[in-house]
Amino acid sequence: MDRLTIIKVGGKVVENPDSLNALLDQFTRISGNKILVHGGGRTATDIAAKLGIETEMVDGRRITGKEMLDVVTMVYGGLVNKKIVAGLQARGCNAIGLTGADLNLISARKRPVAEIDYGFVGDVIDVNSRELRMMINENVVPVVAPLTHDEKGQLLNTNADTIAAELATELSDYFSVYLFYCFEKTGVLLDPEDNSSVIHELDMQLFLQYQNEGVIHAGMIPKLDNGFRAKRNGVKEVLITNPENMADGRGTRLI
Amino acid sequence: MDRLTIIKVGGKVVENPDSLNALLDQFTRISGNKILVHGGGRTATDIAAKLGIETEMVDGRRITGKEMLDVVTMVYGGLVNKKIVAGLQARGCNAIGLTGADLNLISARKRPVAEIDYGFVGDVIDVNSRELRMMINENVVPVVAPLTHDEKGQLLNTNADTIAAELATELSDYFSVYLFYCFEKTGVLLDPEDNSSVIHELDMQLFLQYQNEGVIHAGMIPKLDNGFRAKRNGVKEVLITNPENMADGRGTRLI
Repeated sequence: MDRLTIIKVGGKVVENPDSLNALLDQFTRISGNKILVHGGGRTATDIAAKLGIETEMVDGRRITGKEMLDVVTMVYGGLVNKKIVAGLQARGCNAIGLTGADLNLISARKRPVAEIDYGFVGDVIDVNSRELRMMINENVVPVVAPLTHDEKGQLLNTNADTIAAELATELSDYFSVYLFYCFEKTGVLLDPEDNSSVIHELDMQLFLQYQNEGVIHAGMIPKLDNGFRAKRNGVKEVLITNPENMADGRGTRLI
Repeated sequence: MDRLTIIKVGGKVVENPDSLNALLDQFTRISGNKILVHGGGRTATDIAAKLGIETEMVDGRRITGKEMLDVVTMVYGGLVNKKIVAGLQARGCNAIGLTGADLNLISARKRPVAEIDYGFVGDVIDVNSRELRMMINENVVPVVAPLTHDEKGQLLNTNADTIAAELATELSDYFSVYLFYCFEKTGVLLDPEDNSSVIHELDMQLFLQYQNEGVIHAGMIPKLDNGFRAKRNGVKEVLITNPENMADGRGTRLI
């Protein structure tokens, strides 16, 4: 099967013009089929604040009321996505920006209200990759924003790590998929302050052990949950890394 | 050649949820290949105002400074475009949202500064329809926002009427193209206050005469200039109409 590289980049890499340009340079150098999945991060928070909309986060997840949904639709689906697309086109990379609503790519259901009401947040139900695969086979490079829809007209905010894992899993039936989670650190660190303390290989048992010991915590846990799920479901390789090291395959490899 | 219907809808139709839903219902009923091109209109002005960015218009054209470009990228490319896409998907119409940067669909150059500096406004140079045609042939329905790019990473604000005419012209080499400009009136009116005073057929000579007499003026002139140019360049039919009448082909036909 042909190789397909899926890069997920976090909000922090995307919101700064210099780190965004560095990322796009790195991404352009990756040969073969590729997809970029991006977060939105603080830009949405900043614009919401200017519009007088308060940001509320629970465990790193954004509570998405009706007004905040408009903000993330604008910022993720519009501002961030189209800047990336234009930046890739300038580098000769034939990018197309997508949300989960486009081509009915990712359908989701609004998260049921339990202890917390997350608002218009979507849990992925299905990925429909038919037209996406057609485009990939024509050397088009999809750039995917973290938004889904419920197939009834409602857009939903969905975690970008999850979107990357779901796309990777679906596409592993058709491609040999390499999934790279890129963020500002060199990988999963034993000491979050020390970039040289990278865990080079991480299996499920060690992950659970580190979780129990409190070595791995906070935002890293859902990312790794997503990564291990993708790995179990046919994705060839999952790597946690940063933009500088992704081309070399350095970082934390899930095994 | 297969028929392709291109509908351009103005900002006023799009910004009100009721008129937007009515439009999407009408649009869904159109059989065969179709494209929707949308404006953004007052939503951009409203959001800019909330962000403390002043809107400046010259002859109905938006002066697009750096901050205003971010606003129109968010609003046209994100909020409006993705709401339309989700609404069409809910109606079983396999929509995909695009700007001119996506797939390098529409390249433009920043308008040279003459008497007026329009800022980041793009004049169309080229339409690259290869991937667009592939998708249309797969029953995908493109929804195009009024943004282009300069192929060097710069997004540009571009008039939606122009985008519709340029797409129609380019695609008339491959399809029998019907271009409908939809707005809130029933067509080009002899008396702007009287919806029954529609000019049913308009040729270039009559258009120039009405312009000289001041019967046709303001925002209608660039729309008709675009329409006549498309008609001259191979577009099968150009109609100025409203969403209620577009399916029946009623309105002002350019001949």
